[in-house]
Order: sequence, then C-alpha cells, then structure tokens
Amino acid sequence: MSKELGITPRGENFAEWYNDLVKRAELAENSPVRGSMVIRPHGYTLWENMQRALDDMFKATGHVNAYFPLLIPMSFFAKEAEHVEGFAKESAIVTHHRLKEGPNGLDVDPEAKLEEPYVIRPSSETIIWHTYKNWIQSYRDLPILINQWANVMRWELRPRLFLRTTEFLWQEGHTAHATYDEAEQEALTILNECYGKFAEEWMAVPVLKGVKSKNETFAGADHTYTIEAMVQDLRAIQAGTSHHLGQNFAKAFDVKFQSAEGQLEYVYATSWGVSTRLIGTVVMAHGDDKGLVLPPKLAPIQVVIIPIGKGDKLADVTKRVDKLAGDLRKEGVRVKVDDSDKSPGWKYNEWELKGACVRIELGPRDLEAGNCVVARRDQEEKHTVPLDSAVAHVVAELPKMQQALYDRALALREANTHRVDTWDDFKAKFEGEGGGGFVVAHWDGTGETEERISAETKATIRVIPLEPLHPDDAKPGNCVLTGKPSKQRVVFAKAY
Amino acid sequence: MSKELGITPRGENFAEWYNDLVKRAELAENSPVRGSMVIRPHGYTLWENMQRALDDMFKATGHVNAYFPLLIPMSFFAKEAEHVEGFAKESAIVTHHRLKEGPNGLDVDPEAKLEEPYVIRPSSETIIWHTYKNWIQSYRDLPILINQWANVMRWELRPRLFLRTTEFLWQEGHTAHATYDEAEQEALTILNECYGKFAEEWMAVPVLKGVKSKNETFAGADHTYTIEAMVQDLRAIQAGTSHHLGQNFAKAFDVKFQSAEGQLEYVYATSWGVSTRLIGTVVMAHGDDKGLVLPPKLAPIQVVIIPIGKGDKLADVTKRVDKLAGDLRKEGVRVKVDDSDKSPGWKYNEWELKGACVRIELGPRDLEAGNCVVARRDQEEKHTVPLDSAVAHVVAELPKMQQALYDRALALREANTHRVDTWDDFKAKFEGEGGGGFVVAHWDGTGETEERISAETKATIRVIPLEPLHPDDAKPGNCVLTGKPSKQRVVFAKAY
Repeated sequence: MSKELGITPRGENFAEWYNDLVKRAELAENSPVRGSMVIRPHGYTLWENMQRALDDMFKATGHVNAYFPLLIPMSFFAKEAEHVEGFAKESAIVTHHRLKEGPNGLDVDPEAKLEEPYVIRPSSETIIWHTYKNWIQSYRDLPILINQWANVMRWELRPRLFLRTTEFLWQEGHTAHATYDEAEQEALTILNECYGKFAEEWMAVPVLKGVKSKNETFAGADHTYTIEAMVQDLRAIQAGTSHHLGQNFAKAFDVKFQSAEGQLEYVYATSWGVSTRLIGTVVMAHGDDKGLVLPPKLAPIQVVIIPIGKGDKLADVTKRVDKLAGDLRKEGVRVKVDDSDKSPGWKYNEWELKGACVRIELGPRDLEAGNCVVARRDQEEKHTVPLDSAVAHVVAELPKMQQALYDRALALREANTHRVDTWDDFKAKFEGEGGGGFVVAHWDGTGETEERISAETKATIRVIPLEPLHPDDAKPGNCVLTGKPSKQRVVFAKAY
Repeated sequence: MSKELGITPRGENFAEWYNDLVKRAELAENSPVRGSMVIRPHGYTLWENMQRALDDMFKATGHVNAYFPLLIPMSFFAKEAEHVEGFAKESAIVTHHRLKEGPNGLDVDPEAKLEEPYVIRPSSETIIWHTYKNWIQSYRDLPILINQWANVMRWELRPRLFLRTTEFLWQEGHTAHATYDEAEQEALTILNECYGKFAEEWMAVPVLKGVKSKNETFAGADHTYTIEAMVQDLRAIQAGTSHHLGQNFAKAFDVKFQSAEGQLEYVYATSWGVSTRLIGTVVMAHGDDKGLVLPPKLAPIQVVIIPIGKGDKLADVTKRVDKLAGDLRKEGVRVKVDDSDKSPGWKYNEWELKGACVRIELGPRDLEAGNCVVARRDQEEKHTVPLDSAVAHVVAELPKMQQALYDRALALREANTHRVDTWDDFKAKFEGEGGGGFVVAHWDGTGETEERISAETKATIRVIPLEPLHPDDAKPGNCVLTGKPSKQRVVFAKAY
C-alpha cells in the first residue's frame, strides 16, 4: 500500500517514511534556501490550528502578544556570555543593505556595508531585554507577560523538515518578574498549564515533564523545563521548553527595578517556546503506512464526505451530501466534500494520506436504504450508520478518536520505558539504529558522566522528571555507568 | 490638554502629533535596529484584530494560508527585470552564516561566507513563483489561491512608525490562474470584497478604489489596483494594493501549464498586500488631541469601566462593576476594568489616550441611584444611563460610533476634494506644508507630465478611479499642466 503511495513503510526505514509522508501529504517541502522549508497549505492549516489553541492558553494565563525586530545588533550577543556560546555562532548575518548591477549581473554593493552587522534572531532574549530596560523602573511595571509569534533562524547543518530547519516558525514568551519565586511559578505554569496540556489534550501525545540536565539547559538559563514525547521509532522529541533565566539577562542588559521597599534590584526572567517542530512530533507520533493520522482537535479536515454514483443518481446523492456537510458544519466540524472526478478508491487513499479523521461514503444504494458508511482513520473496519443519526455519530466519534490516539501513544511509551541498573543492559537497549525507548536509570549527576554515556550510546538525558514515573524512581541508587551515588532515576533516550 | 500628555497638538504639527501619539499610547516605539520598530502589546492587539477580520475575508473568498522562506537567493531577483529595479536594490543582504570570537570580541567569521548571498524578502513573488513551477503542470492544478502572513524588509532611509519601516508585518497573497480574465477577477475581488470592505466597514475609513498610473505601478505588475484614504492633515495614504502580474513572473520562472485544450501556456498571476501601515492609517484618520480614537470593531478595548469610591462603598461598587463587565463580555464586548489605585481623572485621560471606545464610570452615588455614567470617546458629553439597561445601551452605542467615525472621515474627504482646471489653481492647492486634499484634475496620461507635476507640487497621482467620484469626472478634457487631451479626471494628492 504505502509503496504505491510513494511512501517508504515505517518498518523499513522510519526516517524515510517520515520524509516521504511530509512531502506526499503536502505538509511541507524543501526550498532552494538551504535548510529552509516551504510550509504548504495543509501543513500551515495544522499550524494555524495549533497556534489558535496555544494562543488561547497563553491569553487565559494572562499573556499578551507583541512584536520585536527580526534583526539584532551583533554586539547584543556579546552581552550574555553563555547565550552567545550556545546560539549566535551559527546564525544568518546581515552585512549589507543594497544590491547593485555588476559586470556579472546582480551583486552585493560594497559601499552599502553596515557599520555593525545584524544577526537574524535565533531567539529574541537580547533585543527584548534591551527593550525591557526602558519599560521597567518600578515593581509597579512588573510582571511583564509577553509572547511573540515569529520566524527565527539557526544555521542547521543536518536539516529535517519541521524537526530541525534553519528557519522555523515559533512562539517565544519573554516575561519579567520581581522575584525568583514568581518567575519560577511562571515557568511552571507554561510547562503544566500550556505546553503539557496542549501536547496531551490537543496533540494526543503523552509527555514527560521535568528539568533538563545542565548540559541540555538553554544557553543563558538558570534551569530549563521540558516536555518530552516518545514517537513510534522509540526516539524522544523535545517538544517544548520553558526556561527560568534567573537574573542573567537583567544583569547583561542592566535591567533593575525599584522594589516596594525602595531597593534597586535586578529583574527575574523566563522565556519559553514551541515551534513548527510540533507538526513533526504529531506526524511521527500517530502516522501510519497509509499516511497522516491526526488528532481530531487539530486536524485541518475532520470529516471528508465522498459522494458516489453517476448521472441523476449522483445528483440525489450530492444533494444529501451537501445537507450532511452543512449540518456537520453547524456543529463546528471541519468538513471537506470531495466531489472531484477522481475514483472513490483514489479518494479513499488520498484522504487517508492527508489524515482526514472520519470518512463518510454515500452512494445511491446507501441513500435508498437511508444509510451512509463511516470509516474512522485509526480503525480498519467501516460502519453503516443511519443517515439521520450520522451527524450525532460523527460528533461523538471525534473525541473518541482523540482519546484513542492518546491511549495508543501512552501504551507505546509504557511498553518501551525500561528501568535499567547495569551498564551492559543500558548499552544493549540503545544498540543498533532504532530508538531504544526511554531508559530510566540512575546517574551520578555530573556532566562528564552524561557525556561519556552519550558518546558510547548516543542516548542523552531527556528529562529529570518532576514527578517520578514510578515511586521507586525517586529513591537513591548508584549511577548506571560510574556506580557513584545517585539521588533519583532520570530518563535517557536517543533524541531527534 | 494634549501638551500635558506629552503629545503635540494636531494643529501645531501633525507629523509630531502622530509620532508622539503612537509612542504615548504604547502602540509602538523605535528600536536599536535602524528603521525597525517594536510593536507593543496595545498596537499588536490592534493588528491581531485586523488580521482576524482580513483572514476571515480571505478564507471566505477561497484562499488558504501557507509559508515560504524568509531568505531569497540573490539570483532570483535578476529574473524579473522590473521587479529587481523596483525592489531588490535596497534590501537586507545575508552574506555569512557564522560569528566567531575575534581580538575585539564577536565578529563575522570570514570562513563562513555564503557562496550566493541571500536577500531578506522585500516581497515574495520570486521565491513563490520558483516554487509554483513544481506545483503547476495542468489546468487542473489551477487556480492556486494562497496567502502568507509574514515579516518583510525594505531598507528605508526615512522611516516613520507603522507608515514606512524597514521591517514590517503584512500579508501577501500570491495567486495563479489559467486566464487573464480569471486573474483580473481575482485582483478585483481582493480590491472590492476584501481591502475596500475592510477599510470602510472595519477601519471606518472611506477609500477611493482604482488603478495606479504606470509610474506608481508595482515593479513587475501589468497593472496595480489601490485603495487610497485621506487622513486628517489632508494627505493621502495608500492603504492596500492588488496587482495583476500578467504572465511576467510565469515567464521569468518558466511556469507553464497544459490547458484543457492541450496547449502549453504561461500562467497568469496576481499578488496583493496590506501591512501594519493600516495601523498608522487608523491613527491618522480618527485620532484627536486627547489620543487614539479607534473604530469599535477593531479597538483592543471597547469598554473601560472605572469604579470610583473608597472602603466599603468601593467594595459594593466593585461587585456591581464585575457583574457589568461579565454581562458585557457575554455579549462579546472587549472590556477592561481599571481598578488600579490611580485617580479617576488619571484613568479618564489614560483610556482616552489608549482609545477605549466607551467609558463607564460607577461610584457609590450612581450605584444608589441605580445609574452609571457613560461617555463615548468620539463625543464630548456624558450620559447617565440606568444600570439595568447599561449593557443594551453600550451594545447599541458601539455600532453607532463605528458609523459616526466613518461619516466624519467621509465628510472630511468630501469637504477637501476639489475639481481643479488650471495649473495656477492646482499649484495653489498644494502650496505650503499641509496636505492639500484630493485634487481631481485632467491629466494627459504620460509619465513625463506626472513627474513634472510631482516635482513642482509634491503631489502624485494617487488613483485613477474605477468609478468616477462625480459623473462629469469620466468626461474628456484637457491636462491641467500641458493642455493636451485627457480621457478622464484622476486624483492627485500629497501622500505618505
């Protein structure tokens, strides 16, 4: 089946399956700009649905949107030492502001060289904290709870559609607070009430929530919270991060406020982001060899209706299909009627590929019998449903499918999460090409050990869970590599 | 009044009034990046409200959204000769992809020079038509009706917040069609059903719709449609343009399709855009010396409620205010309750400055009498309204205010639109610093005459109206400068 579609089966090569599917389902494609993709309408609609849900969550938790410049003066990156180390190095640099006609056609005009180069934002902490300096004088100006929807660029040597691209779309929250505790509360609100909730309730992807090890902490942060998902090849995807930046950026950009007690103090900060990488996560979490399987709450097309038949009989069918589509739309369902001149079989394949959640088929005999045929994308069997109750049936099936996808993803994760206590067992889990699942093991807490483990197995510490997966995980033990004391088990995996 | 607010009065210096107001009302501010602005939350919320209304209109007319790369290979600009002439020259050029630590701190790494420079998109025709080439083979692939919400950059030497900035936010539609007529229909649908309707029904700004003269046509277009607004200093603002690109980009990027008759033909194209310039237009069209006056359909805050009083009495007032706010929100009204510890007078000024459409004041005496005080932003007088009917009153006032703003702007335009037949009268209209209004005059149709007129008066042809403002305008006459024959009157103005 999937080979006819031009899609490598998952079992044969998961990475190729993913790449084929993203292109064939018209989510995105490569562009002539190295590492940058074109997000096609089907992929962008998925992103719009994600944006709307996330934006509502941000606003419900008190945030507002704003927009800061794309370009950042190079000198800003020198102000926060760790930040520049982690970021500014591989970035797109604007050095000139004019082209001119030369002997070989268009060329950069050397006379239009900028005094100071600009960096296309890889993230906006620096320009935002430069701006906040003018906005913050007193505790009355705090908190600032701002989010930005924007494009950013990080020069990628090994790009992969959605998961790692040179340019990507994201949101970046940047908040300013009077105290450490308030900033901590903010970082956790985003982790739990926004990102975690969005992944589980909208994307139908269960996630582990917790802290990153120091090696994996955001450049310039005090500590980083993360949500980590497992996808079908048993690798981890870091799906969103929320950083407590401490006073690092306030010190770098000299942002102080007068407290209620009259003291001059540095401001505390958080930043947090999710990106179009979430699209890749959904595809890898739920897709199958026939194409996309999308959670109904985010799917661009929740129901596709396919009228079948010819001539006069088709006219009757079409009339009933239009009514059905209208009735479903009144219930807020996103419906597509495919009345093109392609064959029914072609259409079934096409809409399975594109991830329509429910397919309704209606032909002259069905119409005569007062029935239609309903197929859910995540199930093999079809059901015959009375036309009069088709709307109610479909409206009830969508949340059931949402839940079924979540349950399936959770079952996969649980079946592939292992507690390991010896180095031999640890290495065995991560042998070969595949993912290896989540390995919950003791670690001595040092970056050195983490690096050694990574060098030998390609597995990294994905998360130090806030809540242990199992109560015993919180008990002390001995590092799986060094045997040194360990406070708690952490989660290792190979990651995208 | 306005001087206390830190805002130059309109009558003293309109340009300074505008700049002061945009900053004081916290819509936007300048950034350390030359010509780029920070759009603050209040300004961004206005943009979000505009985006939502426009996006709904685009979708209602069959368009979908997508996303194309920010960077465009330099060579793409050489492919459409007029386009590069009009655009690519003053652009931000990316030449390197890495920074490194040098002896004087961070510097551009000369070893990371790109083989071919990239241009930050000033507009996306080139990269989009490069992409469409792979999407279009047959007439069955047409039309393509795509829109993109994005940031773009055009190096500006004399930037002005919102009206002309180096980086700005916009939407750009890029459509592909099988015939000239279909593309023409598309360009006109956008002009009339989207841009014209949005300006008049949402922004409360009357606009003239028509064609641009050749001199003002988009670089690479066959012809350009425009909506032109008049603002309070009697200058024109080009608020949106819709271009029929003919086959120019299809030829430049070799995009052909097989027609239903089996012929290989070049594709026809349109492109169209509106930008954050619309925010500047709204401010200049409706604002006054006290601050922003915003059309209710777009205003971030439609109603501000100010509880007045102290101690126990304030508690009672606050309870009633919260109920009122809740009841208004149930009606879909955007409400802000200002219960900060500032004085009522300070709050009145603040929310007039920020452009809240309706202010409701409620104090202990009002509460006792079962009343509240209601003030509309565009009127001087206040009204006492029974609390029980306050919701219905406000819900009725908002559309009245929307209409009143439109009527006022239309009256201004009509009072300042003049038919002029002699060169002396023409010059007199545009003397001095101010705008001079719209001058409807005959023109011989040549670019040379247009340039001479512009050089002498700073007025340009804003629009050749699709429908004459007055029936006589469509009759032939003699050019106001050269006396040569003219087919119809056109509209001249000084423009932003």
